[in-house]
Amino acid sequence: MSLTADSQWSRVIGGITTPKGFQASAIRAGFKPSNKEDLALLLAPTGAVCAGTFTQSLVRASCIDLCQKRIQSCGGNVRAVLINSGHANACTGDLGLRDSLVATEAVANYLDLLAEEVLICSTGVIGVPIPMDKLLESLKPLVENLSFEGGTAASRAILTTDLVQKEIAFEAYCGGRRVCIGGMAKGSGMIHPNMATMLAYITCDAKLPPDVWQAFLERAVNSSFNAITVDGDTSTNDSVIAFAAGELLDKEYWETIELGLTAVSQYLAKAIARDGEGANCLLEVKVDGAQSFEDARHIARTICSSSLVKTAINGCDPNWGRIVAAAGRANVIFDSKLLEVSLGPFKLMSGGNPIDFDRALISAYMKERMNGSYLLQDSICIQVKVGSGIASASVWGCDMSAEYVRINADYTT
Amino acid sequence: MSLTADSQWSRVIGGITTPKGFQASAIRAGFKPSNKEDLALLLAPTGAVCAGTFTQSLVRASCIDLCQKRIQSCGGNVRAVLINSGHANACTGDLGLRDSLVATEAVANYLDLLAEEVLICSTGVIGVPIPMDKLLESLKPLVENLSFEGGTAASRAILTTDLVQKEIAFEAYCGGRRVCIGGMAKGSGMIHPNMATMLAYITCDAKLPPDVWQAFLERAVNSSFNAITVDGDTSTNDSVIAFAAGELLDKEYWETIELGLTAVSQYLAKAIARDGEGANCLLEVKVDGAQSFEDARHIARTICSSSLVKTAINGCDPNWGRIVAAAGRANVIFDSKLLEVSLGPFKLMSGGNPIDFDRALISAYMKERMNGSYLLQDSICIQVKVGSGIASASVWGCDMSAEYVRINADYTT
Repeated sequence: MSLTADSQWSRVIGGITTPKGFQASAIRAGFKPSNKEDLALLLAPTGAVCAGTFTQSLVRASCIDLCQKRIQSCGGNVRAVLINSGHANACTGDLGLRDSLVATEAVANYLDLLAEEVLICSTGVIGVPIPMDKLLESLKPLVENLSFEGGTAASRAILTTDLVQKEIAFEAYCGGRRVCIGGMAKGSGMIHPNMATMLAYITCDAKLPPDVWQAFLERAVNSSFNAITVDGDTSTNDSVIAFAAGELLDKEYWETIELGLTAVSQYLAKAIARDGEGANCLLEVKVDGAQSFEDARHIARTICSSSLVKTAINGCDPNWGRIVAAAGRANVIFDSKLLEVSLGPFKLMSGGNPIDFDRALISAYMKERMNGSYLLQDSICIQVKVGSGIASASVWGCDMSAEYVRINADYTT
Repeated sequence: MSLTADSQWSRVIGGITTPKGFQASAIRAGFKPSNKEDLALLLAPTGAVCAGTFTQSLVRASCIDLCQKRIQSCGGNVRAVLINSGHANACTGDLGLRDSLVATEAVANYLDLLAEEVLICSTGVIGVPIPMDKLLESLKPLVENLSFEGGTAASRAILTTDLVQKEIAFEAYCGGRRVCIGGMAKGSGMIHPNMATMLAYITCDAKLPPDVWQAFLERAVNSSFNAITVDGDTSTNDSVIAFAAGELLDKEYWETIELGLTAVSQYLAKAIARDGEGANCLLEVKVDGAQSFEDARHIARTICSSSLVKTAINGCDPNWGRIVAAAGRANVIFDSKLLEVSLGPFKLMSGGNPIDFDRALISAYMKERMNGSYLLQDSICIQVKVGSGIASASVWGCDMSAEYVRINADYTT
């Protein structure tokens, strides 16, 4: 199965409220000094099924445990997600869990749902409790604001120091029926000092059985959000939550849905990588010829997260020595005599030996792609062939700039 | 066994030629544009035994294979090492291997040894052959220059863009007999664009059986050179080569030798980390309370190589959130409710909960240690307790500065 949406899916303007029946809203609760919107709510239609994947970190926010438990115990019948930005509610002990319970209970009351049908996701400073008075007094207007056009406002409210909003919608026709999948995301590593989290929300207006939807989500996340790396740091709060609602879709179209879900996930994942701290370009590393997908992805990830590769990209330097050195230390066995390395359309190395190439030309090609456009097609692609195996994998990241260090160091205490 | 030299060992001025019988020399062969010394030779006395540990990277220079093979096949009876700096001789195919063979053969002729008794180590640009004419015409004066005081000159010649020389010597008395261990090293990751390699050389004027010496070296490397991380990138040429010569030492003193060997290795390893590209301080991460040494070291390594932790140190920010987030993603099971984090003498977190601390005070403490002194005692130490296990491990690295990115990006092609 191809990892990109095939021609069945076309992009449409919109985000999480483009699929039929989904409502969202956003409000300024006053968590952020900037006074921007910082509290969002997503409501799925009756009968929606909900799937989720969460951070693998051992140090995780209590809201993560709560989300995971409710998705499992409700058999996927979760209906709403409250998202607060400014406080991660991680490492806040018992108080953190109590606050999450109180918040979801209050939302449930306003929406006439059970508390178990409501999730909460938090992003922001670690170790500082959520100002609960501000949160609780914002819930009534937040619920009243819910609308079928609220997706864009919600996608703005979940940001922390992201530079651009990240939302997307695709449509396809499944036997005459129009199906939409929409998504929004935030985050690019652990952004602000003490700030954390990658969050993504996906909606679909065709229903699938909960276990199928969960399996599709896990596979899609594996080739999208799990394939990006900005700084190698996993957050305490990473979450992807996906709803599927509306009439159950015929089985013959399920594969189409998986393609669309993967396309939405990959778009959002790449948008997060491109919006990495201090980044000037989207970096794609594709590894071919490996013995397994895991091997290919591991090599790609090692290259894509190498500080030396990332700084070389920043300097528009086609430095294949750093690329092969990173591949070599990935703990995956391959024959270095078969190594091939290309950057964009240019071959840098073949048969384990360097090739004579026009350094100035390639450097100019790289510079052209560092244009501050945030267009995902303006990426720099490194392709590495490690043998004659049939497995390949792509990983997305970004260059590393002096600005990255400034962002993360120069907030003194 | 303690990992630092106990009081039996005291530091003396010197390096690899401080132990009796070892000679070294250095010369300008003209490999470097800077016209500094760039070719060094180390000669061990007759009967010396030689041990080595080498890069685990799959992409490795041909000289690495040659060294490893000769140390094994000579049963440890290697006598000399030629070290050229400026060209890594990695990814240079068959020519690279041929050049290494020719160079060691020529050195052997001048020294009246077998080629198999001579090693060659290379550091510098990947993918460019060694200018062999320059190398070969420098060998005669290099051999003629060999002296019992040549260690310091050799330690200068092996540097690439290191800022400071790294040499050390210790002495101890083993039953009335004075024993010295000396060492020199270069490198701090992959330094110059396309440049690579950590190299270290250790000499000892008490002999141990080759298998014991090799085992001691492997253990010492494990808690020193294998416990540093500058940028997470393993070089194609990393090597540690250690000679033990002179009379065989009584078995009762072998443990003393291992302590000294470990102390020399740890000193050189820390000196490399402190001289990391763009670094302003030595960072030590110590993990206690783990179930095994491997667990402890893996957590310590993950924290010490986290870009977010390293930039926080650079910004003098006691950002414990980033430290616990890095610990959490290390793929080691621990109970996050038992987490304790200290920085220097200050406790930041206990029982999984943040502690009220004086941020300005700790920040000032950190700033004091970023004083450009290169003194290894001016380090910043992060201590993390992950449970009640008995295993602990230390890892050394450095902060990450905007200068690091400039060094690695701003050499345009």
